[in-house]
Amino acid sequence: MRVIEFTPTPEQFAYTFGGVAPVMRIAPGTALQLWSQDAFNFALRSTSDLSSQKVDLRFVNPQTGPFYVEGAEPGDTLAIHIVELTPARNFGASAAIPFFGGLTSTPVTSMLQEALPDTTWIYEVDSDRQMVGFQARHSDFELALPINTMLGTVGVAPGAQEVRTSLVPERFGGNMDSPEVRAGTTIFLGVNVDGALFSLGDGHYRQGEGESCGTAVEGAMNSLVIVDLIKGHAPAWPRFENDDFWMAVGSARPLEDSWRIGNVEMVRWLEELYGLHTMDAYQLLSQVALSPIANVVDANYSVVVKAPKSILPTATAYDGIHADLRARAATLLG
Amino acid sequence: MRVIEFTPTPEQFAYTFGGVAPVMRIAPGTALQLWSQDAFNFALRSTSDLSSQKVDLRFVNPQTGPFYVEGAEPGDTLAIHIVELTPARNFGASAAIPFFGGLTSTPVTSMLQEALPDTTWIYEVDSDRQMVGFQARHSDFELALPINTMLGTVGVAPGAQEVRTSLVPERFGGNMDSPEVRAGTTIFLGVNVDGALFSLGDGHYRQGEGESCGTAVEGAMNSLVIVDLIKGHAPAWPRFENDDFWMAVGSARPLEDSWRIGNVEMVRWLEELYGLHTMDAYQLLSQVALSPIANVVDANYSVVVKAPKSILPTATAYDGIHADLRARAATLLG
Amino acid sequence: MRVIEFTPTPEQFAYTFGGVAPVMRIAPGTALQLWSQDAFNFALRSTSDLSSQKVDLRFVNPQTGPFYVEGAEPGDTLAIHIVELTPARNFGASAAIPFFGGLTSTPVTSMLQEALPDTTWIYEVDSDRQMVGFQARHSDFELALPINTMLGTVGVAPGAQEVRTSLVPERFGGNMDSPEVRAGTTIFLGVNVDGALFSLGDGHYRQGEGESCGTAVEGAMNSLVIVDLIKGHAPAWPRFENDDFWMAVGSARPLEDSWRIGNVEMVRWLEELYGLHTMDAYQLLSQVALSPIANVVDANYSVVVKAPKSILPTATAYDGIHADLRARAATLLG
Amino acid sequence: MRVIEFTPTPEQFAYTFGGVAPVMRIAPGTALQLWSQDAFNFALRSTSDLSSQKVDLRFVNPQTGPFYVEGAEPGDTLAIHIVELTPARNFGASAAIPFFGGLTSTPVTSMLQEALPDTTWIYEVDSDRQMVGFQARHSDFELALPINTMLGTVGVAPGAQEVRTSLVPERFGGNMDSPEVRAGTTIFLGVNVDGALFSLGDGHYRQGEGESCGTAVEGAMNSLVIVDLIKGHAPAWPRFENDDFWMAVGSARPLEDSWRIGNVEMVRWLEELYGLHTMDAYQLLSQVALSPIANVVDANYSVVVKAPKSILPTATAYDGIHADLRARAATLLG
Repeated sequence: MRVIEFTPTPEQFAYTFGGVAPVMRIAPGTALQLWSQDAFNFALRSTSDLSSQKVDLRFVNPQTGPFYVEGAEPGDTLAIHIVELTPARNFGASAAIPFFGGLTSTPVTSMLQEALPDTTWIYEVDSDRQMVGFQARHSDFELALPINTMLGTVGVAPGAQEVRTSLVPERFGGNMDSPEVRAGTTIFLGVNVDGALFSLGDGHYRQGEGESCGTAVEGAMNSLVIVDLIKGHAPAWPRFENDDFWMAVGSARPLEDSWRIGNVEMVRWLEELYGLHTMDAYQLLSQVALSPIANVVDANYSVVVKAPKSILPTATAYDGIHADLRARAATLLG
Repeated sequence: MRVIEFTPTPEQFAYTFGGVAPVMRIAPGTALQLWSQDAFNFALRSTSDLSSQKVDLRFVNPQTGPFYVEGAEPGDTLAIHIVELTPARNFGASAAIPFFGGLTSTPVTSMLQEALPDTTWIYEVDSDRQMVGFQARHSDFELALPINTMLGTVGVAPGAQEVRTSLVPERFGGNMDSPEVRAGTTIFLGVNVDGALFSLGDGHYRQGEGESCGTAVEGAMNSLVIVDLIKGHAPAWPRFENDDFWMAVGSARPLEDSWRIGNVEMVRWLEELYGLHTMDAYQLLSQVALSPIANVVDANYSVVVKAPKSILPTATAYDGIHADLRARAATLLG
Repeated sequence: MRVIEFTPTPEQFAYTFGGVAPVMRIAPGTALQLWSQDAFNFALRSTSDLSSQKVDLRFVNPQTGPFYVEGAEPGDTLAIHIVELTPARNFGASAAIPFFGGLTSTPVTSMLQEALPDTTWIYEVDSDRQMVGFQARHSDFELALPINTMLGTVGVAPGAQEVRTSLVPERFGGNMDSPEVRAGTTIFLGVNVDGALFSLGDGHYRQGEGESCGTAVEGAMNSLVIVDLIKGHAPAWPRFENDDFWMAVGSARPLEDSWRIGNVEMVRWLEELYGLHTMDAYQLLSQVALSPIANVVDANYSVVVKAPKSILPTATAYDGIHADLRARAATLLG
Repeated sequence: MRVIEFTPTPEQFAYTFGGVAPVMRIAPGTALQLWSQDAFNFALRSTSDLSSQKVDLRFVNPQTGPFYVEGAEPGDTLAIHIVELTPARNFGASAAIPFFGGLTSTPVTSMLQEALPDTTWIYEVDSDRQMVGFQARHSDFELALPINTMLGTVGVAPGAQEVRTSLVPERFGGNMDSPEVRAGTTIFLGVNVDGALFSLGDGHYRQGEGESCGTAVEGAMNSLVIVDLIKGHAPAWPRFENDDFWMAVGSARPLEDSWRIGNVEMVRWLEELYGLHTMDAYQLLSQVALSPIANVVDANYSVVVKAPKSILPTATAYDGIHADLRARAATLLG
């Protein structure tokens, strides 16, 4: 399979989903080897680089793309299979940005208290051991943590003529900040505009569920993905599939609405997969679901609802495209 | 170790945390072998038993207890170690109770739409295979699911002179409906009244995270637990420990408040365990947390925030009482 | 009409709805002249009395009562008509209690930021001009504000065997902190236990809608009320009526759930008052409702939904008991 | 004063804030006489026109504009004074759109229940009496209600390169659906892009607070407004001023976040108006605020926080521009 490589120049960084001209047209089935800048736009390189001085929140999460997928029309389904995610830098950065994050007031959850101390952490990458090094800033503590690469943002252009910043997760995907967006996962997104206008970025070398402080171990990333197209069948909200789980992601506020969305979407998917009546799909999901929180820090909060394949009957979605993409990926990884 | 057995008569069922005289006084360190009735008070025995006709929502989740723990005073910490949970009946029941559950309007999330159809599912227990059988009610579908026993409710009397129904999860524990409340877990609850007044119930043969439809595979349960006492050190919110995780549970509304509580409590715990500054504990937790949702259907919603021991330095909480309880449990199971 | 006067001793203060023995039995139709202590238990008498040092949040909002209303049974409706509310002290107090209030993090909306500065304000009462005096604490600013007396708490014992602190508003009324609970208003509460066990307290000399900082101009109050009983017809949530409005109050979290409850209850009331189909009541309410927020600081948040009598056809609720109580009140004030 | 008249052709309707080329350039201080189409795009003309068949939710709230205000730069403040709003049609329409509104589940507050019955109500305009006629659809009930014209949407282009549909209220104003957006009110909006790109629409002949069913008495509107510019001083969130109130509007989810935003913005405004310390402004607002809910049905929910001028010292904002605009408006109406 042919692999197209693309590394954007800073001028090519996209800071929105929608509203940006495509960097390239690709055919369905194309494999892309992409480089993405880190979420901070490489502004935090040492612990003395403070986010309040160096980071402009209007220009974060620079996206690589968008790519115009030939033949994609509104109502279609884009399938993005993540083959491999590799750190593209020898360190990652994280920060407690003032009035940003989950355990602080923000401009939206607005209060009168002072900000938490602006702090930057730098994580050295140990490629051999596949670890990143946490070094406490106000305490005497060090810890090597396993690298678990993932992408914070994968999305298409929104519907209804909207343009949203790359900080937003929504129906179009976007900044879901879910650890499930990792190698081996296929992401299904409903297409809203001709060409879908797919982009990705916001690489994380690792991230806890919820992304409490608002930032992961952020780093430039090399992403190998296969982008394919399913005519029609657009899901209402993003769906994921890997070898172990069927998944749906809701992104909204308050957090229970995110959870409700993910559940309703999974009820619909179980109906389709197993020919179930709504009430039976609802009951079955109630007893088998896993429900990790993805983020509670972005413009919308995200919840992933997962149904484990291991305890469910064998089934295929979208004519088995996930297994097919896995096979194609294997040829790339050879 | 001496094991005290107790099976309540129906007149002894407690439907509240607080407000009920203890059924027994026990010394710290006592092992209890307890029988608890199912959440529906055994009202749903076949699929023709409908919750709207048979279940009185003022008398559900009958508790076994409360037990007066000698020496327990406000500010102390009760440690409840779950040794073993075994189904006490050959079937479990689940129901879509009208206007109860996560994907329907309720008396609190109040709307004008009609109720979903009142439906009861019966799950036969296959003890040999350790499975329960899901049988769809409106579709032609059967599936055996693994038994994963857990307790929906474990709690003590609330503070501030309150009495809460056994449907409520809060600072005192209660109806957290978390799959983490299973064999091998130690639950730490702050004591609010003399004797702590601990009770448990609401056995689940299995439950998905979130408990979408509002009810698990509900069944009578035999619970073997060890109850111990730590003087002082009451956590602000429930903490759990098992061999794999440090955990804290927040129960509130909206769901992001539950998540915030669990995170802040875990930040405090990491500070204690590793001598970390608040900001460093916040950063560390951000990169290592797991955050499964427990329930989005009860009077408060519950989120569990977990820090994995496998990637953290060895540490002990409460003088290593969890490991000690594990050892004592082993002698009981011996 | 006979008026029963009652001033509780400190030992008689009730800090919960439910769980307290009645101070007195009264017949339906009784007028009560009641004194209530201020919300802080008279702990803040000067600006140097700080809430963090003087106020125990487990013992605030001392209630006067409860009163056992003869003949009141579950399912009945208690009608409490407020005849007159008069400051019983020559000053009121307000405070920014650390981690309490609407523009700060709290133990439930939990964050890691520092508390706002603990501050107490004292408002002198000018009885002649019917004003209270605001004196800024950190600025050079004084302002006389009109006295608008109201009661923060009016409630009955909860259902389902619960006991709730006097900080909680819920289906049983309680700490709604609504400026509508003032002279001229009749409050309808569903009875949950024999005798209803009605109490009141938390007098406010004035309060803005929302009660942003968490405390009003708090003061001891003389309350003249008439308590009457309607057999049956218990509303699901508190209803208010005065000469100008039909009202319903929802108390829940998040705030949209409070609003939904108040709206659904008002839809039901409009159906009853005018014989309307649900959809027509929904439409009519959509075009005429007023929706002031009562509080966003208590254990539940409260919203009042109001339908203005001035633009609606004449109607009577509960056989016109509000007009009748107004007439009886006039004889007391005469 | 010169008045520019503008009536858009259907091709000129804007369905977004941002992302649309201006229809005209105007100088600060210009008066505009504008016609706007109703929210439904004139699709509902009789009760047999059902929203599920006639209304495309991607093309509602057609905006008149945007107007490029010469000299407006990011960080400036646009002042839009509403001089007069007059119904431009002899009837208005309202609808219970399936899965849209406050007392139904929606695609975001997602549940499994059936939709409420799709219903359209037509309100005849009686210009002489200044009334609209409510006619129940499922009941025998008619009622004339006073016309209280207002605009559902007034906004500028968003910041951060975003484009939002005209269904969204946010920092840029937009679909706030507040009854305070009526004749006599000056609206202050922060400018995000050169020219501000101001537009308005979504005329309501009347609307209850909260807009429970999701739609007001929607109708084409003639709007006479004066648009002026203040260099700098952009408020973080929309501020309103009329002769009676200082106001700030928060639009977010959950609803308590909207309320928090409105309160914090009003605290900031009181600090500016009276030279108050934050804590004193917080205290003062707590005792004087009115807090009507504007909408709980849009993409964000809106709350208005109001400080009454009648009980506050005289003050002027933005060099007294509101009084000046009132005077200029008088010359237009003269």
